[in-house]
Amino acid sequence: MSELKNDLILRTLRGENVERPPVWMMRQAGRYLPDYIKLREKYDFFTRVETPELACEITLQPVNQVGVDAAILFSDILVIPQAMGVTVLLEEGRGPILPNVISNKQDIDALITNEVEERLHYVMSAIKLIKKELNGKVPLIGFAGAPWTIFCYLVEGKGSKSFDKAKQFAFTQPELAHVLLQKITDVTITYLKAQVKAGADLVQVFDSWSGMLSPADFNIVALPYLLQISDALCTDAPVILFPKGSWYALPQLSKSSAAGIGIDWCITPQLAREMTGNSITLQGNFDPSRLLSPIKEIKKSVTKMIDEFGVNKYIANLGHGILPNVPVDHAIAFVEAVKEYSVKS
Amino acid sequence: MSELKNDLILRTLRGENVERPPVWMMRQAGRYLPDYIKLREKYDFFTRVETPELACEITLQPVNQVGVDAAILFSDILVIPQAMGVTVLLEEGRGPILPNVISNKQDIDALITNEVEERLHYVMSAIKLIKKELNGKVPLIGFAGAPWTIFCYLVEGKGSKSFDKAKQFAFTQPELAHVLLQKITDVTITYLKAQVKAGADLVQVFDSWSGMLSPADFNIVALPYLLQISDALCTDAPVILFPKGSWYALPQLSKSSAAGIGIDWCITPQLAREMTGNSITLQGNFDPSRLLSPIKEIKKSVTKMIDEFGVNKYIANLGHGILPNVPVDHAIAFVEAVKEYSVKS
Repeated sequence: MSELKNDLILRTLRGENVERPPVWMMRQAGRYLPDYIKLREKYDFFTRVETPELACEITLQPVNQVGVDAAILFSDILVIPQAMGVTVLLEEGRGPILPNVISNKQDIDALITNEVEERLHYVMSAIKLIKKELNGKVPLIGFAGAPWTIFCYLVEGKGSKSFDKAKQFAFTQPELAHVLLQKITDVTITYLKAQVKAGADLVQVFDSWSGMLSPADFNIVALPYLLQISDALCTDAPVILFPKGSWYALPQLSKSSAAGIGIDWCITPQLAREMTGNSITLQGNFDPSRLLSPIKEIKKSVTKMIDEFGVNKYIANLGHGILPNVPVDHAIAFVEAVKEYSVKS
Repeated sequence: MSELKNDLILRTLRGENVERPPVWMMRQAGRYLPDYIKLREKYDFFTRVETPELACEITLQPVNQVGVDAAILFSDILVIPQAMGVTVLLEEGRGPILPNVISNKQDIDALITNEVEERLHYVMSAIKLIKKELNGKVPLIGFAGAPWTIFCYLVEGKGSKSFDKAKQFAFTQPELAHVLLQKITDVTITYLKAQVKAGADLVQVFDSWSGMLSPADFNIVALPYLLQISDALCTDAPVILFPKGSWYALPQLSKSSAAGIGIDWCITPQLAREMTGNSITLQGNFDPSRLLSPIKEIKKSVTKMIDEFGVNKYIANLGHGILPNVPVDHAIAFVEAVKEYSVKS
């Protein structure tokens, strides 16, 4: 493998002093990029995910066109349910549908948990191809959904405003819920280890729906599984945990084996630093909607954000995925503002 | 007017020592109650809202059937856009649709801001009728949507996951956004004052979408208008502000003229007390999905919640509206657990 020419994000995750913060954007590969939209018109979602050449092309687009400091694998968190034998349907422009939801012990027993790497071979092939094409330009981020978020989709069968069906399952059948969460966790650990073996330089775990949980319930159904993943992976590669909306867990997460924690925009950098005792790398937390502001405003806000987080132990990012209606030059302005920061400071 | 036989919530909002916390549930009048569902089959939504006899009947159902310590007017936050001349459509089981969205100065200029009381006369008639029928049994809560939340609906025309259209309006045309927010605020103040004059014993302001804002943006587009309403109303009746998800604003809100602050379940009672210096009455914060737990669990969790908030300066409630699929006996168990608390303590 080629040596990395830009290892800023890895040095940041090790807590080293850096010249400026690294920058990337969640969902940077996709929907707002005209070249992606052209591919979307030709190939359906799972063809794009399952064809290494397409996944590679899409992964590289923001590296070459927007100038981010890290690539993130183009894939989907729902490949895990697929690998476990669950059907996932995805219509363009609509959320995912899992027609056969998990509702009892039989359903859980029927889930497949072995041969994860074989079943998701196309992901490892994509990673190898991406690493070759990147040729050391920037690191590659692998990823997976967190167990609680995957649990939500398995039980609800689709997105939801309150995920009360998933919560009801967890509240009324706690033992069974833990069996399912543990199965997802085991598969996810195997999957992420395979990603690292294939070439991913770091991994991020997305708990998109953890913010729907009370702090007490987060400690029961989300945190233990996030920590298991982090503990299992941390000797393979740096791990970033992103339990969106779960700001309340920052003190606990800062003491975990994770190298970084993602935060959304509903907490000030100051408070996030205070709650983590400035002991861990934080990633975020620009409001994705703020990328719809005029470019001048974006640049001003980014500078302010870095001022508040500080240059070290900080990865500049959005607080959630980039919105489809963001003009590309606004995304570029976000990245440029971070890269220009060192001059100002 | 009859003297109140149960003024527990009013004493609590004044900060007095009480025998036990008062209890009610957001959205307590409606969707989970079989008698409400029967009415829904006969009359469409706006008929139910605009017919004082129906609004009265629905408002009283949870008082008589679930035993809450306060009634809340059956109505909708979108009567304000209607009073301002904006069409609101509501199909059963789907979110509201405002076909003519606000997108420029002309649209804002065209909004009606006078004769609010006349245009919403049916609300005041309903309040008078409810007060008569309650005959002092429990206090009546009036309410309105907060300016930012109404702004979201006026600009988006419907619900949204990220409200990025509303945010884009606020970020790219801040002066115009403030003109619109001020118009909504003025109308809302007039409306809430009319509710109090008609008989509402206290009022609550629902900022359902404030939690989508960063702390900095909350301070620009949400907080000033919440405070204006609270300042204008606080000499008429106690005001509860409920900016859902905006836990970060607790220190500022605790210093406001409001008598109480609503919080959702994503913050521990301990931290909420700490952030408000125990200086203001807090309302909440049971996860509505937790009402799907077994009754025994509900009762245990409610006791724990009161233990953590303390008996005084506390209104037991959910952290958001009750879900349609909650069994009535679970709602009753929630209320009973609060009422039984004094025995335990």
